[in-house]
Amino acid sequence: MSTLVTPVQVMFFDTDAGGVVHNIAYLRFIETARTLLAVKLGMDWDYMRRTSVYPVVVRTEIDYRRPAVLGDELEVHGRLGEATPARFWCHFEIRRPRDSSLLITCQQALAFVKMPEGRPLRLPKGWPSPFLPEVSQSQSSRPSTDSQLPI
Amino acid sequence: MSTLVTPVQVMFFDTDAGGVVHNIAYLRFIETARTLLAVKLGMDWDYMRRTSVYPVVVRTEIDYRRPAVLGDELEVHGRLGEATPARFWCHFEIRRPRDSSLLITCQQALAFVKMPEGRPLRLPKGWPSPFLPEVSQSQSSRPSTDSQLPI
Amino acid sequence: MSTLVTPVQVMFFDTDAGGVVHNIAYLRFIETARTLLAVKLGMDWDYMRRTSVYPVVVRTEIDYRRPAVLGDELEVHGRLGEATPARFWCHFEIRRPRDSSLLITCQQALAFVKMPEGRPLRLPKGWPSPFLPEVSQSQSSRPSTDSQLPI
Amino acid sequence: MSTLVTPVQVMFFDTDAGGVVHNIAYLRFIETARTLLAVKLGMDWDYMRRTSVYPVVVRTEIDYRRPAVLGDELEVHGRLGEATPARFWCHFEIRRPRDSSLLITCQQALAFVKMPEGRPLRLPKGWPSPFLPEVSQSQSSRPSTDSQLPI
Repeated sequence: MSTLVTPVQVMFFDTDAGGVVHNIAYLRFIETARTLLAVKLGMDWDYMRRTSVYPVVVRTEIDYRRPAVLGDELEVHGRLGEATPARFWCHFEIRRPRDSSLLITCQQALAFVKMPEGRPLRLPKGWPSPFLPEVSQSQSSRPSTDSQLPI
Repeated sequence: MSTLVTPVQVMFFDTDAGGVVHNIAYLRFIETARTLLAVKLGMDWDYMRRTSVYPVVVRTEIDYRRPAVLGDELEVHGRLGEATPARFWCHFEIRRPRDSSLLITCQQALAFVKMPEGRPLRLPKGWPSPFLPEVSQSQSSRPSTDSQLPI
Repeated sequence: MSTLVTPVQVMFFDTDAGGVVHNIAYLRFIETARTLLAVKLGMDWDYMRRTSVYPVVVRTEIDYRRPAVLGDELEVHGRLGEATPARFWCHFEIRRPRDSSLLITCQQALAFVKMPEGRPLRLPKGWPSPFLPEVSQSQSSRPSTDSQLPI
Repeated sequence: MSTLVTPVQVMFFDTDAGGVVHNIAYLRFIETARTLLAVKLGMDWDYMRRTSVYPVVVRTEIDYRRPAVLGDELEVHGRLGEATPARFWCHFEIRRPRDSSLLITCQQALAFVKMPEGRPLRLPKGWPSPFLPEVSQSQSSRPSTDSQLPI
């Protein structure tokens, strides 16, 4: 599984009165990168609409190492990581090519969730190939045994 | 119809690298004020869920007169304004009591829209009393004649 | 002066529980488009840092015609419009090429402001060519006569 | 050190097309709660302006346990946690009193940073009492030895 690189340029609304990018804005950059990574893996909006299965963030860990400033051209490097039966991790780095600096590292754990009942689905055997859970009728009626999962 | 005053304090994420509140943040303040105004008038989330009728912003006009800064304690003054058969206006001022200054004036036109078909509803006779459209079966099947309205 | 077209794809964080793009998100799309338009016209972050002159939004008018939904690929069409001695207008349309629909029309009035004193600058003679105000020492010490302008 | 409880009501702009609060919105709730906690501890905007010392988030860990929905009245419970010489932790829970549910748990590590040079300051002896770093001239000229810290 290779890394997907998403470019982003820092706008005024990404910064705050401290003169640097606000800590929440980096998470918006990562949301976009993760969505495009999911699309690349086959989980596009069409799949979500058709199956009512959504990838849901259940945990985020983010380290703020160096700040970006107004106008910076950044890159979000995203890749799929390890998995348990119920969740998988994505790893992100935000880098600034101009000075080769690493600004942000972030890991997010995600689960596949069947809406609207909010039932978590198990990852398919052999994951990440196939990446997407098979959404069968029988699976839909199986009660969830993973009660710690959100939603 | 009296004015509803909603207090708001400026946070870091409301400001930008220019050292002042970003122009989009004021619109979030106004969204909150308008939602609380709607609740006061009877359009709460329960009504929306039960009837699938939502108030939808169809036009915003906003003048940025003076900037707010980090930590400012502001007031959003909101009130209901005039109406046509298909839409009504809300008026807002954002004021800073500390120096009695008027920072923002804003008008928003709204329509009542029946979801998910996105059909605009007419304002009830005698509006704003009653404020809410009656959502009857016969009205639901009447074709819309107001094709300029959004959604 | 030609039109600058900025592509944008609708992410989860742009939508709301009504199932459509939230009215504030369109203004973020327009912010990005306007910033890139300004860069094209010579007002990049370098110019701003060097001169402490910033383009500031003083009025926004926006009409919400049709809603965008999750995953939509949109285009923001932005162009420079008419001017008075103290402010100039930018015009925007947000279009969805998939069904050739016009979703949003928007006009924004901007002023050039010298920070941190917040003094508005006059547009240069012959504007928009040259687009940028000349920032001279003598002009810097001239008192402002345009007291209605913000900041 | 007691817990500060900050109320928040879920607005449309906090939700997404999945029908629940977007994962980034909870972090905005937490930003507001942490800012009010800092003010309570003496680090208000006045202190920041006077000393150019800012509390900066260097790491966030957040677990999304259950989703909030439109109109929910939530509480953010925030309290100060443990510290190392260079950083301290804040702990947050987002709760929904209506059904006594715990939606979110979050920890954030913060450092005191002297701007604009971005130099991290050590926590004062006896922290959290006194909570704020003493900003002396001699300390200002001491070179930083904590090179992993951001900014």
